[in-house]
Amino acid sequence: MHFTFLGTGAGVPAKNRNTTSMVLTMPEYQGDTWMFDCGEATQHQILHTSVKLSKIKKIFITHMHGDHIYGLPGVLGSRSFQGGVDKLTVYGPKGIKDFIEISLSVSSTYLKYPLEIIELDEDGIIYEDGNFKVSVKELEHGITCFGYRIEEKDQPGTLLVDRLKAEGVMPGPIYRQIKEHAAVTLPDGRTLTSSDYIGPDKKGRKLAVLGDTRVCQAAVELAENADLLIHESTFSKGMEQKAHSYFHSTSTQAAKTAKAANVAALILTHISSRFQEDDQLLLEEAREIFNPTYLAKDFWTYELN
Amino acid sequence: MHFTFLGTGAGVPAKNRNTTSMVLTMPEYQGDTWMFDCGEATQHQILHTSVKLSKIKKIFITHMHGDHIYGLPGVLGSRSFQGGVDKLTVYGPKGIKDFIEISLSVSSTYLKYPLEIIELDEDGIIYEDGNFKVSVKELEHGITCFGYRIEEKDQPGTLLVDRLKAEGVMPGPIYRQIKEHAAVTLPDGRTLTSSDYIGPDKKGRKLAVLGDTRVCQAAVELAENADLLIHESTFSKGMEQKAHSYFHSTSTQAAKTAKAANVAALILTHISSRFQEDDQLLLEEAREIFNPTYLAKDFWTYELN
Ligand SMILES: [Zn+2]
Ligand SMILES: [Zn+2]
Repeated sequence: MHFTFLGTGAGVPAKNRNTTSMVLTMPEYQGDTWMFDCGEATQHQILHTSVKLSKIKKIFITHMHGDHIYGLPGVLGSRSFQGGVDKLTVYGPKGIKDFIEISLSVSSTYLKYPLEIIELDEDGIIYEDGNFKVSVKELEHGITCFGYRIEEKDQPGTLLVDRLKAEGVMPGPIYRQIKEHAAVTLPDGRTLTSSDYIGPDKKGRKLAVLGDTRVCQAAVELAENADLLIHESTFSKGMEQKAHSYFHSTSTQAAKTAKAANVAALILTHISSRFQEDDQLLLEEAREIFNPTYLAKDFWTYELN
Repeated sequence: MHFTFLGTGAGVPAKNRNTTSMVLTMPEYQGDTWMFDCGEATQHQILHTSVKLSKIKKIFITHMHGDHIYGLPGVLGSRSFQGGVDKLTVYGPKGIKDFIEISLSVSSTYLKYPLEIIELDEDGIIYEDGNFKVSVKELEHGITCFGYRIEEKDQPGTLLVDRLKAEGVMPGPIYRQIKEHAAVTLPDGRTLTSSDYIGPDKKGRKLAVLGDTRVCQAAVELAENADLLIHESTFSKGMEQKAHSYFHSTSTQAAKTAKAANVAALILTHISSRFQEDDQLLLEEAREIFNPTYLAKDFWTYELN
């Protein structure tokens, strides 16, 4: 799976950074794509990538500020226009349903796919299936703003084929039975304990995609032991007072959260246009605290192994 | 005054043509700028022009399809963010008020300027001041869609300074009195009839900016004797049946309307992405019927003398 940043700016679009949106593309799960936030012109950004609107199955909105939602009506309409037929679910704070429904209805936009809109009002698990669990916690942004934690479930290990062959068990329908049952009786009467022939579980990946926020404990909790934390960095080191007043974070604060949460990697995004020329500064400041930090750019893709 | 095309595409954004928006910039009227339609990413397009959001005083929306309105919340919010304080008036069909008010309220966007929203429901004059008269007529687009006619009022001619000097009337406060009064009595007792010393009225310019439409009589009436007609050309010659079904026009139909209305120039816009490579074809087809035709492109500016 990989993360593609469609917009990495803050507040208003700038020439080199659009307002916030990113997508998680999962080739290992039939190419399913999950979007996080959808600032204006997200569909325009997508025109320059290999992202397919029809593959977007879920859109998670962190908060209702315009730079995170104004691209939604366009993305939803164009997904239909381009032939998307699979159900799409949008998660977001209260207000998201009104915004979407009124935007679509005043513009006489009739979607050719089922659209489900789920308004979130408290911390907890918002989605779970055989492969994933998604939970939210409220951050501190002046208005309701959620951070998302995505946990891939541990996947069963692969069959230890060499060991089976050594026991004289050759490939066939029996291999599938070993995967699916705790014990299997062979035609010759022997009973195998399946776990002896299956490698260790493949640990599921964990990631945290946070909305805009001040430094807060919920951010650390959402990111705990994650493989990747995506965190805003609207301001730079030394601007902590300003960050507090405007409910945002500095590069250094994002790095401290990453360190406290013991994540494997941190990506800084939501970069103010004031750093157009010297955005590398933010990266350097964060790396002083937490070395495996990266700075997002529009159209940049990060591979999550 | 000049027209700048911010988006000249149809339906959905394409790489080279954004969805519809254009602005009329009037340096001769303190730089006042009027916008017509506002598709998604209009504010992004503006970043690449000299258009100032704070100078936009009026926005005229032709109809409520997403490709003509989804950029409004962003333009309104950014105009405030960039320091716009003058009143802004938005005109459009029923629904425009709900769309704007809900988009701004769910996103906690508080404008620092007065915003007036006027919903249009019938043909007639919608605005008039000392310099302009703006009127609308409903077109044929399946949903309510208006065409706008902008008439600049005739401006009084310039003072015939040479003739005044020949009478011994030298420059001074008296020149202003001649402009402002029908007759003026000089210090030496003579009375001048002002109209003898003022050149002929300067004819006001007339332009018609139409929304999406089938061929219809209202289009011809709106454009009558205009200096400029801006007309959609979603389809090409020979696609009249399709144009009729989808409530759009072909290049040839636009040209026939221009000819019937006796306009001085026609600009084709709202070009379907199917003509990405061969959009010049539309221009050639129109010129067969009406020679002074131009094909709009994103960021192209047309000077109206
Ligand atoms: Zn924000
Ligand atoms: Zn349209």
